[in-house]
Amino acid sequence: MFSRTAVVCQLLHQFHQPSRSFSMKNLKTSFNSETVTNIFKNNWRSLASITQPVKRKFLARWRRRFRNALIVTFVVGGSVYGYKLYRSRQWYNEMRDSELTIGQKPRVVVLGTGWGAVPLLKHIDTSKYEVVCVSPRNYFLMTPLLPSVSVGTVETRTVIEPIRTLVGPRIKYIETECINVNPKEKIITCSADGTKEITVAASDRDKLPLEQNIEDNKEGGSSSRKIRDSARTRPKFDMKYDYLVVAIGSENNTFGIPGVEKHAHFLKEVLDARRIRSAISDAFESAMVPSQTDEEKKRLLHFVVVGGGPTGVEFAAELADYVREDLKRYFPRLVENDVKITLIEALDHVLSMMDKKISDYTEKHFHRENIEVLINTFVKGIKQREVIVQEKGSTELKSIPCAVVVWATGIKARPLTNKLRETIGTDKQNNRMGLLTDKYLRVKGVDDGTIYALGDCATIEQQKLLDRIQLLFEESDIHKRGALTLDEFRSLIENKINEYPQLEIFQKGIEKSFYEADKTKSGQITLEALRSVLEKADKKLRSLPATAQVATQEGRYVADLLNYMAHPTTTTTSERFKPFNYTHLGSLAYVGGDAAVIDFSGSKPLLDIFSLKPLSGRGSYYLWKSFYFTEQFTTRTKVLLAFDWLRSNIFGRDLSRY
Amino acid sequence: MFSRTAVVCQLLHQFHQPSRSFSMKNLKTSFNSETVTNIFKNNWRSLASITQPVKRKFLARWRRRFRNALIVTFVVGGSVYGYKLYRSRQWYNEMRDSELTIGQKPRVVVLGTGWGAVPLLKHIDTSKYEVVCVSPRNYFLMTPLLPSVSVGTVETRTVIEPIRTLVGPRIKYIETECINVNPKEKIITCSADGTKEITVAASDRDKLPLEQNIEDNKEGGSSSRKIRDSARTRPKFDMKYDYLVVAIGSENNTFGIPGVEKHAHFLKEVLDARRIRSAISDAFESAMVPSQTDEEKKRLLHFVVVGGGPTGVEFAAELADYVREDLKRYFPRLVENDVKITLIEALDHVLSMMDKKISDYTEKHFHRENIEVLINTFVKGIKQREVIVQEKGSTELKSIPCAVVVWATGIKARPLTNKLRETIGTDKQNNRMGLLTDKYLRVKGVDDGTIYALGDCATIEQQKLLDRIQLLFEESDIHKRGALTLDEFRSLIENKINEYPQLEIFQKGIEKSFYEADKTKSGQITLEALRSVLEKADKKLRSLPATAQVATQEGRYVADLLNYMAHPTTTTTSERFKPFNYTHLGSLAYVGGDAAVIDFSGSKPLLDIFSLKPLSGRGSYYLWKSFYFTEQFTTRTKVLLAFDWLRSNIFGRDLSRY
Repeated sequence: MFSRTAVVCQLLHQFHQPSRSFSMKNLKTSFNSETVTNIFKNNWRSLASITQPVKRKFLARWRRRFRNALIVTFVVGGSVYGYKLYRSRQWYNEMRDSELTIGQKPRVVVLGTGWGAVPLLKHIDTSKYEVVCVSPRNYFLMTPLLPSVSVGTVETRTVIEPIRTLVGPRIKYIETECINVNPKEKIITCSADGTKEITVAASDRDKLPLEQNIEDNKEGGSSSRKIRDSARTRPKFDMKYDYLVVAIGSENNTFGIPGVEKHAHFLKEVLDARRIRSAISDAFESAMVPSQTDEEKKRLLHFVVVGGGPTGVEFAAELADYVREDLKRYFPRLVENDVKITLIEALDHVLSMMDKKISDYTEKHFHRENIEVLINTFVKGIKQREVIVQEKGSTELKSIPCAVVVWATGIKARPLTNKLRETIGTDKQNNRMGLLTDKYLRVKGVDDGTIYALGDCATIEQQKLLDRIQLLFEESDIHKRGALTLDEFRSLIENKINEYPQLEIFQKGIEKSFYEADKTKSGQITLEALRSVLEKADKKLRSLPATAQVATQEGRYVADLLNYMAHPTTTTTSERFKPFNYTHLGSLAYVGGDAAVIDFSGSKPLLDIFSLKPLSGRGSYYLWKSFYFTEQFTTRTKVLLAFDWLRSNIFGRDLSRY
Repeated sequence: MFSRTAVVCQLLHQFHQPSRSFSMKNLKTSFNSETVTNIFKNNWRSLASITQPVKRKFLARWRRRFRNALIVTFVVGGSVYGYKLYRSRQWYNEMRDSELTIGQKPRVVVLGTGWGAVPLLKHIDTSKYEVVCVSPRNYFLMTPLLPSVSVGTVETRTVIEPIRTLVGPRIKYIETECINVNPKEKIITCSADGTKEITVAASDRDKLPLEQNIEDNKEGGSSSRKIRDSARTRPKFDMKYDYLVVAIGSENNTFGIPGVEKHAHFLKEVLDARRIRSAISDAFESAMVPSQTDEEKKRLLHFVVVGGGPTGVEFAAELADYVREDLKRYFPRLVENDVKITLIEALDHVLSMMDKKISDYTEKHFHRENIEVLINTFVKGIKQREVIVQEKGSTELKSIPCAVVVWATGIKARPLTNKLRETIGTDKQNNRMGLLTDKYLRVKGVDDGTIYALGDCATIEQQKLLDRIQLLFEESDIHKRGALTLDEFRSLIENKINEYPQLEIFQKGIEKSFYEADKTKSGQITLEALRSVLEKADKKLRSLPATAQVATQEGRYVADLLNYMAHPTTTTTSERFKPFNYTHLGSLAYVGGDAAVIDFSGSKPLLDIFSLKPLSGRGSYYLWKSFYFTEQFTTRTKVLLAFDWLRSNIFGRDLSRY
């Protein structure tokens, strides 16, 4: 009559809807009693509760739920607590270990806590080395988000992470500044108060005649805040090292233009961003004061950004967002009539290191966003209330009245870099931009190869093929015929590609290159033909850009290299370990109004599968966001960044000034 | 055979579990076909879908869901967008209105953006007055959370709210400092650069011989940051007012103790908290530098808090939390051996304004938390690396070596307050603590009653009953018998309670007080007896504490008073509007280790129903938290505060120093 399933199904249905007044008795009368009894025998566990009065069932269920909740709470709470305990135990043990083994392992001293130093510190094998990190800045700074910080889209604490949290207990960190390196005795000298010593030593720093009364002096890498006298007792001390890694970065280059140091804001450190944020708010509040003239309002609300690189462009974009999205609400008249943003670029394009399409897109986009772009314009000086500019090909000096100037042009070597260059000898270290290194990032001129340099403060010396063409030719010309066959040419490239990475361009089409060079179709190429071939490769030589991407890869590379060297079987590195090879992954910049640009040109073939075309617009903006989100080193900063983006979307940016 | 309900029930069950292979056909065969058909006729809508194939149903459901989702998205999105648009329209309209009516309505100028000014600005009727707020600080600061900010439990931006956001578009805000008030012409003079003018005028400010080279000068209320020259052009200007409300607060009192201004941290403004946070981190980092002696480490990690009031206690508590919860992880050895926190209090108890039980609890609790409490100890001077103290009853001066000193003792009048007192005449304004006002918060000595003062910068002058006892007696003694009957005594109290709020203590037991005074049981009291009665009332006189609670209520009161006065029927206020009456709601303080103390003593009878007993411990901590959470003025700060508490619980506090 009935399928058994149907009855069970109905019973289960009742069971799940206990509020119905449907009891065992009804069931028995309405169904065939035998069937029901059979079913009960087979399913008594799941049906047992039906036989009980509704009220008791209700209580029992809640008792059960409560019991389960208790069990879950205890188990989860216990596990979390246990894990926390375990982690803190582990932390203490590691910390103790790292203190106990002082002097037992070779000591690696890392100068810096930036993009180069942190990957190194994270990947170096602390069981092989005693690692000491020395830097005046006790946190890592997510520099690409600084433009966001400077207008309040993202808060300051979101873009920084304490170095101790980041690298863990096995690495010792000392907050102090290295003021001298002695490569011969393998000793560094540190002092927190030592900045002056360097400032005097570095001759080209304070050349420009500064007026008196510079109160906010921007000395040091980390902070221009004056350490209060009471706590500032950090005696000068020396430290021995076995390996030294210099990753101290760079400082802002004023190119000797008068007034920049005094009147312009930089955008390199956290405090710079805070100062800019304050200055923007200050400008608006000043313009709101009654009895300001219209002209003065226009001056106060004219923001000038010098430098059309990613930093300058992103700052201008973020500022335009800030004005449109938040300030317009509070200062509608000022925003409509007086606010002006000008971007000054000396070259003929903004974002000139990126694809031409991207530059064009950005310029158009900026035009829509009411950001004026002055290309081919040189800044000749900055005064208290104006910027003096000169157009290319013109001798006329123009004055741009303004209140806030952000200087985002270029970088130069830090005083310590220059001092180290002088110590080693400027004949060997003849690059004013930074420390010259070999392809293994070892500083040139340090004979025992114990000093490494990476990031903005270092430049890899690139050997030109043409300088050694005679030797290369003779080495490859095994049959001494005065010409190379295809096989000889191939072995030349394959043997030398490690030493001369620029040979890579031939790797895919060795035969093609050979036949192109072999114009006489003789099956051989002469020295002259080889010269024209190798010239092409040399032309590809370009020193690596001073970006976070390069520094990160270099840091990781040096960590791997040092780990490799710690193996007892290794004697010389150069034969077995590959030289540093930079893999460009593309570059990106936010251009405001929820749009970003991404340029993949120059990125390695692996990324070809996506697209080599430059991207721009809203899609890129989400890519940009997700990229910076994933780039955050820790969960903490990830959570904070997500929260900040949400916050500034919902509540707007905060215009308090302090 | 079957109840119809059972069948429908089963069908519905099938309908809700469509994945079963249970179709119309099976149903018809297993059930009486006629019944089913009948049911179908009655329930065709709900059962219709059963007749369709499963696949089509599935698609249809998803189509329906998608359609519903679309509708919901459009409706919700449209409403949100519409509401936003409406709000911004409204905002602009209000802003325009407030600009159009300049000069048409009486102008109320409010000086300050603190606890007194903000409630006033929020409640004043802007349709009746043109309201202008003048303050050098363009945000409201949640001062009680400053101790949390100073160790990083809560972030800076969480405790501040831009004044423009807070008070809306109808109130004009000017970021400038009032440097002079002319009560006769009803004009104020403002200038952002005017701090110097006042500093010179205020004679008792820089009395102590300051050594040269004070770089971090803590002038002004809001910020010791130097405004960059380029933007700082805020011409001095005058502004007329019809009503002036002075709510400029107070500044830290150094009591003329040498070295405080230079070597101690205050804890009154946001930047103070930031400086302290930085100094704590600095002390730990300095102690970690190799070659520090043990003695020097102990000095560097000795934190001294001067002042056992709520601010000092809360700061010491937060610092102990910070050390135990976060710094211990990174500096385990230093925390175990060298860290010391000392609280210095001149009286014989901490939190002396609270209940004795609370003081005892706090002192015991601090003992457990390793905070040393020095009671009966006076600070005689602060030097660069030490605090000089003297115990009560001793002439010996002791030196306490330390690095970070937080000064949280007392307050004094701001320069503008003193200047205004001098302008009015110090004979009438003879209170050095602030501006004397009448019970309607009108500043004494300003004849037209157009200046109000409230908050820390004001003191309500309290009339003693005894000063006028003769007059009171004669007025009340209607029958001229030289003695008061119970009825006369009652009418005296009821008539005069507005003028003399201290009479309130009799209100509940007029008869009891009368018969107590009437020792001869004659049914009358003489002048002498009345004197002894009223003396009791006068003893209850105490000027209101300088707390946020008082300022808030005063601000609200002045707003109500001004709104009341705007009614055209009102001519004099004193007859119809009640004088200000402070309702104490209790006081609370966080004492560390997830414990807080709450004191209800002095709170009004309404709160008797809860409990008048002081609370302490973990429960109070949650009360403390929920109180500050609800106290936040805006959703934004509420969300931020909740997030901050969560963040510092999960990720710990950030020890980056910048």
